[in-house]
Amino acid sequence: MNRHTVTAFDTDLAALVRDLAGMAGWVERSVERAVDALMTGSADTAEAVIEDDERVDQSDRDIEAGAVLLIAKRQPMGDDLRVIVSTMRVSQDLERVGDLAKNIAKRALIIDGAFHQRKLARGVDNLANLVLSQLKRSLEAFVERDTAKAREVWAHDTEVDALYTSLFRELLTYMMEDPRNISACTHLLFCAKNLERIGDHATNIAERAVYAQTGELIADDRPKRDELGLQDVTARH
Amino acid sequence: MNRHTVTAFDTDLAALVRDLAGMAGWVERSVERAVDALMTGSADTAEAVIEDDERVDQSDRDIEAGAVLLIAKRQPMGDDLRVIVSTMRVSQDLERVGDLAKNIAKRALIIDGAFHQRKLARGVDNLANLVLSQLKRSLEAFVERDTAKAREVWAHDTEVDALYTSLFRELLTYMMEDPRNISACTHLLFCAKNLERIGDHATNIAERAVYAQTGELIADDRPKRDELGLQDVTARH
Repeated sequence: MNRHTVTAFDTDLAALVRDLAGMAGWVERSVERAVDALMTGSADTAEAVIEDDERVDQSDRDIEAGAVLLIAKRQPMGDDLRVIVSTMRVSQDLERVGDLAKNIAKRALIIDGAFHQRKLARGVDNLANLVLSQLKRSLEAFVERDTAKAREVWAHDTEVDALYTSLFRELLTYMMEDPRNISACTHLLFCAKNLERIGDHATNIAERAVYAQTGELIADDRPKRDELGLQDVTARH
Repeated sequence: MNRHTVTAFDTDLAALVRDLAGMAGWVERSVERAVDALMTGSADTAEAVIEDDERVDQSDRDIEAGAVLLIAKRQPMGDDLRVIVSTMRVSQDLERVGDLAKNIAKRALIIDGAFHQRKLARGVDNLANLVLSQLKRSLEAFVERDTAKAREVWAHDTEVDALYTSLFRELLTYMMEDPRNISACTHLLFCAKNLERIGDHATNIAERAVYAQTGELIADDRPKRDELGLQDVTARH
């Protein structure tokens, strides 16, 4: 491969990664706004998130098509091919995050208005802030090829799990205190679970950032501490 | 490209698709056994599913590596490249299905034993059977390049949504009747949601089967009817 070809490939790859960064911006905004709709009860905000999901899905399809075209045109090998394939996988993770944000927005439209201002909103908000920070940093790590940052994101997933578990306990307690809370709290449980899963996608993206650069997988020996460690709550009631 | 090269590519692609079919077999078995553990309360079965997930994750990594190697070695264009990329995407869907089965198995270990034999087990079992049939048929459609079967799977997702919605209502009712049901029913709600999401992955795989063969996307105008249409239940309590 001569110098000219390599440069053309680099230019094409940079454009693809730029598209991914643009998609990431949309997805992060959707998560922010979905949580905002949940906190404030704003139907307009929720509906905007639901509408924007089509744009996210289209971005995923465009990035896959762009990646396939780039492979066909430049026929990259080794490291270059691994980076392109990783870009497609990150795009798929982002597409799923968009779906999860849409699901939170739909629940924001349904949940009883009285809940929006309650103290448990604080728990959801804390979890959302942490998860959003993880998502943003994982994308920065991927785009900037910063494996140290990626490893940091990966290590911080335990904090997401801990916050989620505490929120899960809290919501279960409200349901047990008063059956009238059950419908709303069930939706909030799913919102909390969606946020925890967005955190998992951020971890996937961080793993991808390391893999794309080094070809190495971060060993998956991270202790997974979610609400499924909650035997005590289950036993008590 | 001469005739010899085309044949070598076809042989390599067939091997990759065979690996995917093998992975699918493992994943289907995991879903079956996870639901079995939920029905019977068998801790051995649940733990076997949790252990097997590592094998599923490894299959996904192997298929991606095989696909990347195949692209690098044969430098396919057009239709061939689209089939390989689609194989990777289906592998990622199956890897997620494996995670969802593992999550059901974990919940089977936690849920109060008294629930295992109860009437609501029937609802979960019906949903699981339908979802498993969808998953198997979507994989057959992909492997056998049968776009008619793929479109059938795609159309049947509304049945999954309807069964899930009815189960969701039923579980919510049990929680409202008696707060002592809340912990177990919350886990069953998440199990039901996991099954519904496995159904979504089957739909993704069916869409991929059509796309891999034709390059066309099935228009996503399927009416999505899940429990988020349940305003009435929310309003009543």
